Amino acid sequence: MQRKVIVENVYEINSARLMCRLKELAKIGRNKNGGIDRQLATPADIAARKWLIGCWQKDLGLEVKIDPIANLWGKVPNAGNCKKPIVLGSHHDTVPNGGMFDGALGVLMATEVKQTLQENDVELLHPLEVVSFTGEEPNSFSVSTLGTKVLSGRLQIDDLVKIKDRYTGESLQDAISRLGGDIMQVPAARLDSDSIAGFLECHIEQGRHLFDQQESVAAVTCITGIYREIITITGEANHAGTTCLRNRRDALAAASEVCLAVEDIMRCSGMEDIAATIGRIAVQPNTSNIIPGTAVLTLDLRTADSGKRRQALEKLQEGIQKIAARRHIYIERCLNLDQAEMPMDSSIIEAISDAAAANGEKRRLLVSMAGHDAANMARITKAGMLFVQSVDGYSHCPQEYTNEAEIAKAAQVMLDAVLLLDRRLA
Amino acid sequence: MQRKVIVENVYEINSARLMCRLKELAKIGRNKNGGIDRQLATPADIAARKWLIGCWQKDLGLEVKIDPIANLWGKVPNAGNCKKPIVLGSHHDTVPNGGMFDGALGVLMATEVKQTLQENDVELLHPLEVVSFTGEEPNSFSVSTLGTKVLSGRLQIDDLVKIKDRYTGESLQDAISRLGGDIMQVPAARLDSDSIAGFLECHIEQGRHLFDQQESVAAVTCITGIYREIITITGEANHAGTTCLRNRRDALAAASEVCLAVEDIMRCSGMEDIAATIGRIAVQPNTSNIIPGTAVLTLDLRTADSGKRRQALEKLQEGIQKIAARRHIYIERCLNLDQAEMPMDSSIIEAISDAAAANGEKRRLLVSMAGHDAANMARITKAGMLFVQSVDGYSHCPQEYTNEAEIAKAAQVMLDAVLLLDRRLA
Repeated sequence: MQRKVIVENVYEINSARLMCRLKELAKIGRNKNGGIDRQLATPADIAARKWLIGCWQKDLGLEVKIDPIANLWGKVPNAGNCKKPIVLGSHHDTVPNGGMFDGALGVLMATEVKQTLQENDVELLHPLEVVSFTGEEPNSFSVSTLGTKVLSGRLQIDDLVKIKDRYTGESLQDAISRLGGDIMQVPAARLDSDSIAGFLECHIEQGRHLFDQQESVAAVTCITGIYREIITITGEANHAGTTCLRNRRDALAAASEVCLAVEDIMRCSGMEDIAATIGRIAVQPNTSNIIPGTAVLTLDLRTADSGKRRQALEKLQEGIQKIAARRHIYIERCLNLDQAEMPMDSSIIEAISDAAAANGEKRRLLVSMAGHDAANMARITKAGMLFVQSVDGYSHCPQEYTNEAEIAKAAQVMLDAVLLLDRRLA
Repeated sequence: MQRKVIVENVYEINSARLMCRLKELAKIGRNKNGGIDRQLATPADIAARKWLIGCWQKDLGLEVKIDPIANLWGKVPNAGNCKKPIVLGSHHDTVPNGGMFDGALGVLMATEVKQTLQENDVELLHPLEVVSFTGEEPNSFSVSTLGTKVLSGRLQIDDLVKIKDRYTGESLQDAISRLGGDIMQVPAARLDSDSIAGFLECHIEQGRHLFDQQESVAAVTCITGIYREIITITGEANHAGTTCLRNRRDALAAASEVCLAVEDIMRCSGMEDIAATIGRIAVQPNTSNIIPGTAVLTLDLRTADSGKRRQALEKLQEGIQKIAARRHIYIERCLNLDQAEMPMDSSIIEAISDAAAANGEKRRLLVSMAGHDAANMARITKAGMLFVQSVDGYSHCPQEYTNEAEIAKAAQVMLDAVLLLDRRLA
């Protein structure tokens, strides 16, 4: 029998206000294609920060703190509650030509939940804080989820001082200083596991599960592991006209077989919940009249099940050995990233599910196949994520879209989950 | 019964002198990898021209003419013979990081043949001229066999004035002017079919036929047709983690199948003498965590048999339609180059074969699967090519190598072929 949950006091979020803020924030960094360019430390990032600080200060009366890695924290000054805070938030940066929901929705939904509770004079046991993290998306400094990597101690000052913008050469230290942070103070920014009661992030699903099922929200059970390797295929560059088939050692033809072997992983039985992609290829000399001599591929393999990952890699290795032997080509594989899957906290999963059920939604559970700040936050506190339906599953592109009704439902579920967590968390 | 040919007067070429000149010229543009960078209009091109002019003037007493497209012509001043000239030569430019034989050997063998005949006071019926053509190799002005395209009228002044260096933006007009030419005078450079009795070019084979058979020389029967198209594959860029297999429209996976279908052309029965290559690929957005949305390939298809080309393209179209339909992907093919095969002149093929036989070599015939200036010259005169063995078939790379004994044999065959042609040509 399903547990019945009653959220006693019903505080209604103001979805019109939330939509209005989403549209306002989306103006910052909007490009001529309708996409949003708001990458880390760009003028649009800085403008978005200014706008957000203004919103939190003026509309919500919050005190805004910029920590050493330039994460923005909105807190009630001198909050009376004696418990550790519950933190809500996400990030405001985007990929190049990104959409208006990824990140921004999580920050502004946190803002809306906080404001609704304030307007209704709800007294919580935990202080409720809002946050917008620095540099969550892949960026020109080649480090994603930057803000939470620092908070959770995954990146230390020694790592940070080495990082430079790959296009401009600007140091990360200078860039963070432009955002109001101070990398030299980073050791003080690290959060210990005692400092926060729980963290909750709302995000568009970035997949089609909710959209295809026409459901609104889901609680995330686990954030996928991400495994990457660089596959270097060395054949022999040679003349495209004069080299017979038997003398060819075509690196691109071999790479083509590797790409198809990677795709085949997803076709194996029991491999539905694994994602395997070659997203990047570089061929040398890459000219029309020369047989490619080398091809370098980047493999991205994701699953929340490390057993399946091992199985997939074994199968791939077998396939690659056959390709190399048959084509007299050398294939080298080099680990590039091995980020373990990160389960979300069960009490937060439950609170989200209970709140969803109380709002007439299914108790839907999903694995997140994308990385998120919540995965880093889970290292230092009870963390959880609420997914909202995204039309056609679009993300990281101007087509990202979630309609107001879905957003309103999700915000209400989040607000109610916060109320449940306020009572349930220590 | 094989025809017996006797070359009455035996004039021996000086292979030591030829090797010495090859090594001297190879110093110009030599890079730290041991390769040669002597692309069109670079300082090394200019230095090589200066060296060559010096050699022709001082060692051979020739008058050197620079025509409007900056081809270098070495002629005997006031030659008494009344017939049209026989022209020998090739080009002195190289691909980036090229070898020391491609082009240079043809120019210096022409020089050696001319000098040997002069030293032996051989009186020919035809004036014998040497030539080094401008910009035969692919270059930053995106035009190969430039010198002979102008001579044969394939490129006109209107085309030439539009061409710019894709890196520096320098106009071809300025570059040619730095080489001593004058694009505005190009109409005068065009040769009519009455002006030359015959053209003969020696070149390394650039394939392995002669090397694998341990033969020295071959007469070229035909220069391959080159057909190129740009294949644009449009799928949908999407998140590498959150997009299930059934929702993927992966442009790189589709491109992989296209690459393998292109390679398969060469495996079809009767398709031994066709070369099909994808040498170039560009994927967008080409980043590790996004499924490729578009892939652009360049197909290079070569054969001396236009029927086989038609057959290959039909088969490819069939394969591509299946790939596009199965993957719900759009594949567009766009013609980029359609250069017909160019048969060499039968009297020159015969002269080379006869000279080879007279020197104890097989009457070997080969198709050239690479393009050459001789293909353009064949539009305005009787043209032919002599191929020399190249170790392992290397070309366009520092490993290019032909040993002195092979070069000596080839030079002797060329000299004897010139003696035969002098008597046989009008």
